[in-house]
Amino acid sequence: MEVSNKYITIKTHIEGAPKETDFELKTAAITLSVEPGSNDVIVKSLYVSIDPYQLNRMKSYSSSHKATVAAAPITPAEAIDAFGVAKVVVSGNPEFQKDELVVGSISWGEYKLVKGGDRLRKLDPMGFPLSYHAGILGFSGLTAYAGFFEICKPKKGEKVFVSAASGSVGNLVGQYAKLFGCYVVGSAGSKEKIALLKEKLGFDDAFNYKEETDLKATLKRYFPEGIDIYFDNVGAEMQEAAVANMNIFGRVAVCGIISEYTNSGRRAAPEMLDIVYKRIRIQGFLSVDHFDVYGDFISTTCDHLRAGKIHPLEDISSGVESIPSAFIGLFQGHNVGKKMVQIAEE
Amino acid sequence: MEVSNKYITIKTHIEGAPKETDFELKTAAITLSVEPGSNDVIVKSLYVSIDPYQLNRMKSYSSSHKATVAAAPITPAEAIDAFGVAKVVVSGNPEFQKDELVVGSISWGEYKLVKGGDRLRKLDPMGFPLSYHAGILGFSGLTAYAGFFEICKPKKGEKVFVSAASGSVGNLVGQYAKLFGCYVVGSAGSKEKIALLKEKLGFDDAFNYKEETDLKATLKRYFPEGIDIYFDNVGAEMQEAAVANMNIFGRVAVCGIISEYTNSGRRAAPEMLDIVYKRIRIQGFLSVDHFDVYGDFISTTCDHLRAGKIHPLEDISSGVESIPSAFIGLFQGHNVGKKMVQIAEE
Repeated sequence: MEVSNKYITIKTHIEGAPKETDFELKTAAITLSVEPGSNDVIVKSLYVSIDPYQLNRMKSYSSSHKATVAAAPITPAEAIDAFGVAKVVVSGNPEFQKDELVVGSISWGEYKLVKGGDRLRKLDPMGFPLSYHAGILGFSGLTAYAGFFEICKPKKGEKVFVSAASGSVGNLVGQYAKLFGCYVVGSAGSKEKIALLKEKLGFDDAFNYKEETDLKATLKRYFPEGIDIYFDNVGAEMQEAAVANMNIFGRVAVCGIISEYTNSGRRAAPEMLDIVYKRIRIQGFLSVDHFDVYGDFISTTCDHLRAGKIHPLEDISSGVESIPSAFIGLFQGHNVGKKMVQIAEE
Repeated sequence: MEVSNKYITIKTHIEGAPKETDFELKTAAITLSVEPGSNDVIVKSLYVSIDPYQLNRMKSYSSSHKATVAAAPITPAEAIDAFGVAKVVVSGNPEFQKDELVVGSISWGEYKLVKGGDRLRKLDPMGFPLSYHAGILGFSGLTAYAGFFEICKPKKGEKVFVSAASGSVGNLVGQYAKLFGCYVVGSAGSKEKIALLKEKLGFDDAFNYKEETDLKATLKRYFPEGIDIYFDNVGAEMQEAAVANMNIFGRVAVCGIISEYTNSGRRAAPEMLDIVYKRIRIQGFLSVDHFDVYGDFISTTCDHLRAGKIHPLEDISSGVESIPSAFIGLFQGHNVGKKMVQIAEE
């Protein structure tokens, strides 16, 4: 049996901000069968995660890319792998049965033949919507949890600043930090996002960085007693301003630097005298290194979800065709919370 | 009894590189007596340490300075406190007796009245020259030891890069790293310094940064397998080049940034994509936070010294009058190893 498979590709490597014409929707027939004994699996996508880091994989240069599987370069005209939730359609793998739900590396498309069933695992939804497993209970959640607890090593009462605070990871960092007992201020790019952070997500305060002209002064205003932890999702001037306002033994967890992704000329140049005298630690991290806290992350987050103490902030588009605009929107601040695309109904 | 006390002051706060006219040699009478029961001590300087960080204390702005006692601002026309070795001349403090040797906070001058005997401790030379206690067995040594072992957390066989490698701290970091079992390359600013690093101090390799035009390419040449640890004494372009050549989980210990001290416009802007994907940690530190390893530092270093495995690299001038030029020379690369000034014979 054959079905038609729609999927997204890039036409060529991308420089600067991504635009609609960089992408192409392709259609190809896929045979719904696998070689017996191959361990291959064919999955049908339900929700795919739309993440800024994919842009780095689409660039032609790749200094950093080889450092990790998650950042392996994307080849033009080929299907793009991405994290998501799917359903097994055909399985030659004893670990997976037809119609079972799985989570892991699928694609920006309707179907994917997953060789050997690699980087897939069975999904028990635990009573939560499937979308949660592509977002808050997926890599965005693990990134926020591990980044905050393992890299920032917070103490109760510490002052935490989160940039891109209404983004997929930032909103969760802020919520974890509040639940842990920290004072939390977030930055975001619109009045609506600021209201959301303060009114719905429980941030102590929040500001619209687009209305600020001197970020150092802004952070001084929001943190008169200084910043202990900066969870950095944007890089550039914001990182410099945070370091300038940091307390001794401050920590900067560098999760992403979205403002630098589309403009390689933009660079954070934090004052190194501050780094030395205030003994500041700036540390990059990837969630893939932190599976040792995966169990804690899932149990803690599920408890908070069931108790209504943490709010999943989801921004879901529909259909393969919407993937390019969903992705492009990340770099224009269109998303509110975790961006994903629902490819099919369960 | 009164004696004449010569000491160095700054005339005004200093901007940019220090020059002879920024300093003044003053002479004042000092009475060699203390109030009974005051705990005060008068010491006569023997060796004073000449350190680049003092320049930061001489500047008029002081964002970072308040973060630590060691970096408290220096007031024009007043005596300048500095680390060194001295002899007790008069003591009202039961802890210190006349003619005993002490080490700690003395001054860029011949005599100092130390209120309460604060920040002084008795010195047992342990059979070593007194100058060692102002250098390799003093703060320079502790900075190298704690920075390398506590901040860099080395593993045997790792590849270590040290900048300003013939400086007071850098030369020791390289020697500790070699003794620990790392591969070590240093950078310095003259042919003579390079020869010294390779031939006398046992560095695996070394290069003259003044002869290089593309530091990224230079480090690629010296570290074809990448850098695991960068001990940063200079900041700016060198830090950027080191980060670009770093392996995953690389560590940058920021000890000092001498190239930025005299030019506040120079800034390191390391590629944050590298920081994230390679999970790099950049961490500032001060030796004063690491007294917990002081015992280990002293016993390890004394053992190495007695076994002839570590070489104290000292650069000693003579007389209070020579302090300004000794200090200015630090920023021109004149010193080879630990710069200090001998103020008096024991």
